[in-house]
Amino acid sequence: MKPLLKCTCCAEHYPLQEIRQRCEACGEPLEVEKISRASIKRSDSLPQTVLERYADFFPFAQSDSRLSLGEGFTPLSDSPRLAVELGLGRLLLKNETLNPTWSFKDRGTSACLHHAAEIGCTRIGTVSTGNMAVSVAAYGARAGMDTFVLISDTIPEEKIAPIAIHNPHLIRVQGDYGELYFESLRVGSEMGIYFLNSDVPMRVEGSKTIAFEMCEQLAFQVPDYVVVPTSAGGNFRGIVKGFEEFLQCGLIDRMPRMVCAQAVGCAPIYNAWLHGDSQITRIQTPNTIAHAIENPFPPSGNQALRKIREYDGLCVAVTDDEILQAQRAMAGEGIFGQPAAAVPLAAIRRLSSDGVVSGDDVVVCVVTGSGLKYTAALREQPICTTHCTLAQLREALAGK
Amino acid sequence: MKPLLKCTCCAEHYPLQEIRQRCEACGEPLEVEKISRASIKRSDSLPQTVLERYADFFPFAQSDSRLSLGEGFTPLSDSPRLAVELGLGRLLLKNETLNPTWSFKDRGTSACLHHAAEIGCTRIGTVSTGNMAVSVAAYGARAGMDTFVLISDTIPEEKIAPIAIHNPHLIRVQGDYGELYFESLRVGSEMGIYFLNSDVPMRVEGSKTIAFEMCEQLAFQVPDYVVVPTSAGGNFRGIVKGFEEFLQCGLIDRMPRMVCAQAVGCAPIYNAWLHGDSQITRIQTPNTIAHAIENPFPPSGNQALRKIREYDGLCVAVTDDEILQAQRAMAGEGIFGQPAAAVPLAAIRRLSSDGVVSGDDVVVCVVTGSGLKYTAALREQPICTTHCTLAQLREALAGK
Repeated sequence: MKPLLKCTCCAEHYPLQEIRQRCEACGEPLEVEKISRASIKRSDSLPQTVLERYADFFPFAQSDSRLSLGEGFTPLSDSPRLAVELGLGRLLLKNETLNPTWSFKDRGTSACLHHAAEIGCTRIGTVSTGNMAVSVAAYGARAGMDTFVLISDTIPEEKIAPIAIHNPHLIRVQGDYGELYFESLRVGSEMGIYFLNSDVPMRVEGSKTIAFEMCEQLAFQVPDYVVVPTSAGGNFRGIVKGFEEFLQCGLIDRMPRMVCAQAVGCAPIYNAWLHGDSQITRIQTPNTIAHAIENPFPPSGNQALRKIREYDGLCVAVTDDEILQAQRAMAGEGIFGQPAAAVPLAAIRRLSSDGVVSGDDVVVCVVTGSGLKYTAALREQPICTTHCTLAQLREALAGK
Repeated sequence: MKPLLKCTCCAEHYPLQEIRQRCEACGEPLEVEKISRASIKRSDSLPQTVLERYADFFPFAQSDSRLSLGEGFTPLSDSPRLAVELGLGRLLLKNETLNPTWSFKDRGTSACLHHAAEIGCTRIGTVSTGNMAVSVAAYGARAGMDTFVLISDTIPEEKIAPIAIHNPHLIRVQGDYGELYFESLRVGSEMGIYFLNSDVPMRVEGSKTIAFEMCEQLAFQVPDYVVVPTSAGGNFRGIVKGFEEFLQCGLIDRMPRMVCAQAVGCAPIYNAWLHGDSQITRIQTPNTIAHAIENPFPPSGNQALRKIREYDGLCVAVTDDEILQAQRAMAGEGIFGQPAAAVPLAAIRRLSSDGVVSGDDVVVCVVTGSGLKYTAALREQPICTTHCTLAQLREALAGK
């Protein structure tokens, strides 16, 4: 029997099958009658952490809750409307914006901290002004580790504040930012500071879990295409490695076609792929709204190229207009990603109009980070509002 | 046997027990050797959705993936350092910032949409300019429902953009915003538009799952105190009701002491509680940095009062300075909440210095929404950076 809606204050009851939110007798709020029987049992247990569930795949003795903030196990959301629009069998969005610092970086950060702790390292660092800086600052704070975040001398204050709130050692470094990446690894290794930059091995290990989860969420049926916005190449490599390991374990029976998605304004891997080169070439003046993937000389670019070729993958580069359009389209599915996170959907639209993907294909786009990370991009999006007075409310609602 | 680090490009191998991130021979990135055996099985399944797991507790026939974005199952993070500092047995942060639109609102939004769909309603609406507006716009878009978001005529463009990206009918309404809350419920009910405002019954149902998860995450040991930042009162009511239902089912053996946490600048429930009133009084000039709980006349205020008294609960009001301090302290545990989400920690600090809570107590603070929702508040937080050139990097890192 259906429960009733009852008043929180007086004795009134109402049926549930209508829109009714307040008590007609006393004006106080209503509530659903209490449930007193349930099939749930005390012996039931909630899910493990990612590092617990996939412990076999990590070279750590055990997972440590101080080095975790509950990263991973992100939703894989079906988007049937977009699938129809793009002529795909199925389109799924792997929503990495639901990580503790709202980007995929947290998976790798947690994996790196486990490794750092295991080898007795209590000082960590990173070179980043974006998602990775925030992730490392947050996890470093939780772990109680001495945390160094090296930022460019020229970044605006507004990008610093969300890092600074976690109170790391924030060092503005003057000089070539690309060189700083490698210099920090060198100096860090000598000084015993574990720099968890964007393509270090343990960060790649963390990203494997994106592939593991996808496989499980799809009942071990491998998608036809997996599209990854690609900057340094660490996340791309990790996802590939995850599929490789599940394949070697016999958990899946083939590899997906991996799609490396970049922005036209900074597409070093795409360029090398297009020209059949084995080495990437530095982009001189990178320029795209997808700042999170604006890496002119990706440290794992060559390895990404090797993997793309090994598994018959693809590269796609999309324009800022296509990225903004894809950002709106994803928001139309309820998911607000930062511009970089919309690059895969833009890439799939391109592959769809080029006739590469078709009506049987199952496609997964990796939505790497939250739109709240870079709200300035919203200035490029249209805002449409109407206006009424309180007295005109009914009219305004009816006008739609 | 431990795996090795191997080069992604050449034949070099390295031990894992040191900080080494690139190949010394060729400069290419390293990776951990692949894992080819695992205990995970194809028959394993990933967790259910919240509405599936707690289906017994909801008056819906079944859960519908089009009405969900993967809300709930948020982490409950232990904060041992803060527990020691505050003289508590245990302090836990229920991190609601990991919901699909980065606040607790998503639980209630999903529950409301299930109810709306079940009673044949395809048009929804809400009155909000903050977390709830974003949540309803996102879920309405995903569900393909006609979605009306009523905002105040005076809110700044920057607050509108993250709602507008989901493309709802955005209506700026001129007139008393508090009156609009009730007027929208009236007009909506007549016109068949389901207004899911902040304390409607199904939103309260959604919030129950916060209590359910806490119980499960604590192995059905009820915490001594549960602290909730309280605005309209819907979330507070939902959490109480969740504990009540688990108690009635025999899954837990007592209720926690519920703490209603408000800001000094807008504390209508606290005021009534302090003066022994049964009815809240409207706050004339609300003013706090915790905008998300700045509700001068909470529609579920009286019911919240009744529940606080029924279960020997407490009210606490904290200043903006205390809120900002708590925001920093939470970030020191790796969790960046919006100011409203830091109010519980500030409240517990107050209860600690007042000697109310003690060394045996297990306390849960509900961290309601992401700090990225309101980055302007970061202007009130200190930023400390140092500076060096690339050549001075070693020196700068050694200086700490």
